Amino acid sequence: MLPLHLQPESHIPLYIQLRDQLRSLVHAGDLRPGDRIPASRELAAILGVHRTTVANAYAELESEGLIQGHVGRGTFIRGNGNGLKITPPPPPTLSGNGDGLRWELLFADERSEEILTRLTASAPANAMSFVMARPAEEFFPLEELQACSQAALRREGREILNLGASDGYAPLKEAVLELLRSDGIPAKDETLLITDGCQQALDLIAKAFVRTGDTVVLENPTYPGASAVFNGVHARCLGVPVRTYAEPSGALGIDLEALESTLASNRVKLLILTPDFHNPTGTSMPVASRRRVLELAGRYQIPVVEDHIYARLHAGGERVPCLKQLDRSNLVIHIDSFAKVAFPGLRVGWIVAPAAAIERLRLVKQMTDLHTDQLAQATLAEFLKRGYFQKHLVRMRKIYAERLNALDEALRKSMPEGVRWNRPEGGMAFWLELPPGFDASELMIHARERGVLFAPGRYFYVQSPLPNTLRLGFANLNEKQIARGVATLAELLRVEMRKRLRGSRRAERAHMALV
Amino acid sequence: MLPLHLQPESHIPLYIQLRDQLRSLVHAGDLRPGDRIPASRELAAILGVHRTTVANAYAELESEGLIQGHVGRGTFIRGNGNGLKITPPPPPTLSGNGDGLRWELLFADERSEEILTRLTASAPANAMSFVMARPAEEFFPLEELQACSQAALRREGREILNLGASDGYAPLKEAVLELLRSDGIPAKDETLLITDGCQQALDLIAKAFVRTGDTVVLENPTYPGASAVFNGVHARCLGVPVRTYAEPSGALGIDLEALESTLASNRVKLLILTPDFHNPTGTSMPVASRRRVLELAGRYQIPVVEDHIYARLHAGGERVPCLKQLDRSNLVIHIDSFAKVAFPGLRVGWIVAPAAAIERLRLVKQMTDLHTDQLAQATLAEFLKRGYFQKHLVRMRKIYAERLNALDEALRKSMPEGVRWNRPEGGMAFWLELPPGFDASELMIHARERGVLFAPGRYFYVQSPLPNTLRLGFANLNEKQIARGVATLAELLRVEMRKRLRGSRRAERAHMALV
Repeated sequence: MLPLHLQPESHIPLYIQLRDQLRSLVHAGDLRPGDRIPASRELAAILGVHRTTVANAYAELESEGLIQGHVGRGTFIRGNGNGLKITPPPPPTLSGNGDGLRWELLFADERSEEILTRLTASAPANAMSFVMARPAEEFFPLEELQACSQAALRREGREILNLGASDGYAPLKEAVLELLRSDGIPAKDETLLITDGCQQALDLIAKAFVRTGDTVVLENPTYPGASAVFNGVHARCLGVPVRTYAEPSGALGIDLEALESTLASNRVKLLILTPDFHNPTGTSMPVASRRRVLELAGRYQIPVVEDHIYARLHAGGERVPCLKQLDRSNLVIHIDSFAKVAFPGLRVGWIVAPAAAIERLRLVKQMTDLHTDQLAQATLAEFLKRGYFQKHLVRMRKIYAERLNALDEALRKSMPEGVRWNRPEGGMAFWLELPPGFDASELMIHARERGVLFAPGRYFYVQSPLPNTLRLGFANLNEKQIARGVATLAELLRVEMRKRLRGSRRAERAHMALV
Repeated sequence: MLPLHLQPESHIPLYIQLRDQLRSLVHAGDLRPGDRIPASRELAAILGVHRTTVANAYAELESEGLIQGHVGRGTFIRGNGNGLKITPPPPPTLSGNGDGLRWELLFADERSEEILTRLTASAPANAMSFVMARPAEEFFPLEELQACSQAALRREGREILNLGASDGYAPLKEAVLELLRSDGIPAKDETLLITDGCQQALDLIAKAFVRTGDTVVLENPTYPGASAVFNGVHARCLGVPVRTYAEPSGALGIDLEALESTLASNRVKLLILTPDFHNPTGTSMPVASRRRVLELAGRYQIPVVEDHIYARLHAGGERVPCLKQLDRSNLVIHIDSFAKVAFPGLRVGWIVAPAAAIERLRLVKQMTDLHTDQLAQATLAEFLKRGYFQKHLVRMRKIYAERLNALDEALRKSMPEGVRWNRPEGGMAFWLELPPGFDASELMIHARERGVLFAPGRYFYVQSPLPNTLRLGFANLNEKQIARGVATLAELLRVEMRKRLRGSRRAERAHMALV
């Protein structure tokens, strides 16, 4: 018997666990060249997993040259002479590095968006990808942007190209303050810091306010880039469940009762929230929940980081006031970026926070990269001042609202019973729940073969992942593609559901025969 | 008696120590409104410091509204009713933050370039500034740069403006590899990572490889942005002295004997070096020293970070091979940037390191800010490919060599005996040593009044600062300005030297009278 121990509740898909454990057995010498390993059906029965899980693990090991199938004889470990590739250990100079390996583990687990990028990269070129939540580049107002960059360089080239201020390029700060004013979000020069986008905003916040062992509370699931940052500074990350369906007992968004008991029973350093079109669940917190969060944060004196990155992409007319607008106690660190509206390749975002927090963040920013790229800052300043940003936003809001509707309709039309989702009111993604027992990572393998990609939900969890969840990003697909993609997924799901039904009937008959 | 304790060996200038201690006494209630404080001459005698030190501390406290002079009566603490301004404490939500305040302290000490920026900002507009080591913007090839940015946006705008790869924009990676090839520095795609400049390179290296309590060895003095990064991750920073004058007993650059004993008696995680035109001392290590450093690093298995940022600015014809070129054991993490040749406002640099280290750094980079701004990357790629970079480099090398000569000549012509410097072979700065007992921070106060600025040496030390050192950055001043600035400094020094001489003669006479 092989010493294999799969953990269904792990972040790591079962087939990857299996692949890695088999590989370790070979490297450790427990499995040797010429050894026969069980057929996939046989091993699946032993481990109590779906046969596809084993087949996928074997496929990867075969492509690595570690195992080989012989027709009629079975599957064998390959000999060294046959091209066995063993991943070389890292160079000695960097391996004596104790917990330094944490970084590699963190990502080698294939948690976070890293795996999503790879999934997309290895898919057929014409695949329909629901994986990402990024803006549709076919609508980028390229000419306007070019004109802005030229005008800025012509007018203030020398200043742009020399070193600048760590808190941001003055004309951009003015333009962002104007944008915030028109949104009703209070801010002034000393409460605003320009960053290289929201990811860096989180990084700076972690550096400025969080130390090893501090407790940080995030939504569960959450944006993997957020948990990665706080794991990176060795914080203890606690996930509070997000309610993805409004029920009489509670509103959408972070579970307020669970949040309260978490804050009551832990010394929490920071609370990270995305109240608008939360990534990945698409949920938005009603205003009453927002007030309640601020009340709790005030009671326990915990700063709240509000990720506002999707808030401008509301499908309907009215926006719910953000935490920063409701905050009366200087509790909120508000982060935002241009990246979901346009031009994520220009790494520019901002933080609005109490002046004392901004001053500390500015010094951390200076130490991190001196300041944000000034050509991007000057170009976006011009883009805002000329009104192009608002114009583009209005246009994209309409297009994304249409795509959101198309996805909702397609799901309603073709998804089998037992698949649940909550129609979001904006943002870029839907969150689906498959019937219990389904694993979205396994479904993904079949879907990829048929040219459809999505993000399995497990990558978004801080803890206790639900393997039967998945995220569908719709911003990059037109209505026709959305309809076709959803039809393919629905068909696959029906097939899998029928297989399960047959399986359980067979089990029932077998049981009856024994009665 | 006031409980004042000044530390002459501290990083912090004496007048700032005095100012802060007096301010604390007021805040603590030890000094109250109406209390008289000693006249500056009197307090200077009590504390054994120069009168200017006290006068400067008083001037700052007066401008804060904390003290007030009354003609004929003396200097008094102001009452609350008279507009006493007490710096408000940070908001309660961010103050329960124990060691969180470290960041503020780090910079409130006015160590690092932060103070240098402020010194420049508060100086008269027409001041001659030897403070910075940054490129001369009047030579920026603006039109070429604009053409490059336009061409890139026109050709590949959509790709530039969408999210990109964490390891860098492919066309820039190719162009940098070509540049490295022409320099004879070995690199390939998987050993190259694009960063937001050298400051971020250091930040990523600290995050990837250094943990709280790890020991990092730096040159002493060093670039303050480097020690700030490693202090930021709570490493133990050890400084090894830099020899600024070649002597029979040892070559220029880091003291090899001190380095060896430091490596032998500590478990060192990283060694950070700037072998070419070291900032701030301007020294370059001879090739034999470089080989010796690699030998030591190999023996103790310590990765070496080589800061190559000034290396292209050699005044003479030949470059000394860099550590990366001499490295046979995969020990070197080589960092570099465009910022000292041109366009520091475009935040783009790179790391060349073993593939395993780059892979880890890439994942850290992704977590830090996803990737470097792509408009800057694409623009610089085009700038390199069209040959503009090499052309500009040749031009600037010539200009900086002329300025370097001009500074050396001016110093030789006018500096009084007892002032020492070593003529660097390139880079952007000279390191001066005043006669023992002189404090460059005090000199700076007088110099500023006469419209000349420089960087006092103490800000560059990891430990045991020599207050009688200073850095003169020459890249931003033309030959005439250099001559005038040095003449002013020399004159000031002569005045101070005469004062001292008179002081010591007086002391001698007083002593004789008592015999």
